[in-house]
Amino acid sequence: MSRFAALVLVALAAGTAWSAAASRPVSYPDGYRAWAHVKSMAITDAVHPLFASFGGIHHVYANPAALNALRSGKDYPDGAIFVFDLLEAKSADDAWTEGPRKFIGVMRRDRKAYASTGGWGYEAFAGDSKTERVVKDGGASCFGCHQSQAKTFGVYSAWRP
Amino acid sequence: MSRFAALVLVALAAGTAWSAAASRPVSYPDGYRAWAHVKSMAITDAVHPLFASFGGIHHVYANPAALNALRSGKDYPDGAIFVFDLLEAKSADDAWTEGPRKFIGVMRRDRKAYASTGGWGYEAFAGDSKTERVVKDGGASCFGCHQSQAKTFGVYSAWRP
Repeated sequence: MSRFAALVLVALAAGTAWSAAASRPVSYPDGYRAWAHVKSMAITDAVHPLFASFGGIHHVYANPAALNALRSGKDYPDGAIFVFDLLEAKSADDAWTEGPRKFIGVMRRDRKAYASTGGWGYEAFAGDSKTERVVKDGGASCFGCHQSQAKTFGVYSAWRP
Repeated sequence: MSRFAALVLVALAAGTAWSAAASRPVSYPDGYRAWAHVKSMAITDAVHPLFASFGGIHHVYANPAALNALRSGKDYPDGAIFVFDLLEAKSADDAWTEGPRKFIGVMRRDRKAYASTGGWGYEAFAGDSKTERVVKDGGASCFGCHQSQAKTFGVYSAWRP
């Protein structure tokens, strides 16, 4: 196969991926604030490599299906959802407190719908909006990092009892 | 009434309070890690006035009864429980992450059992222990601060959607 043909195939595959994700967008995760809280982290120093994207305080939440799998170490069933909830980190009175929401990231397990991004659909919603979608590449950039976590099925977070 | 008699009454009252709390200790809140996460805060600067007691990253969790009341702004029914989960704050790679647990604080609503401390029973458990109790004064010192929050029924945390 020529290099050109290979590139066309890659482009077609990417197009298919984008179409699949676009045709089955990840829904806003209603009620996630009452889901189990997995862990938190604060990226407050501008020199952190992820500061531009993820600077602030973030919390990770899991719906019951995701929590069960996370705690058992097993693969995630379709329907498992994680939410990455990013808030501004406010430094005041010698403490870090939570500011306004920057966005929420959502990853939803569906092996068939999101096969091209490792069986997870990725989406993000700006601020407190339930409709303003941020991800524009069908989740390819999200998957670009998450695929490094293959041993834990694409999930970065570990359960902390 | 003489000053001595008044002091005796205060001492008796304190003794009664202590006895009431001691006779009905606040149980370890099994399963709280899957309760709703209310809010978080990181006290990482040693100059903070609460650093000695509460330095680290803390998360507040609410059981369903506490969550319902918190979200509605109503008073808390008996059985409502909040957990204050304090972890060490680790500074590494230009971010704050969660370290080992320092203790969990628990406040449980029971107007009758804990009438002398504002209708909340206070307890704390060291580290990951479910049996090593930390509060030695029947919750008097906890109540000493929490009573300032009378408008919100003794609760510091506000619900953040």
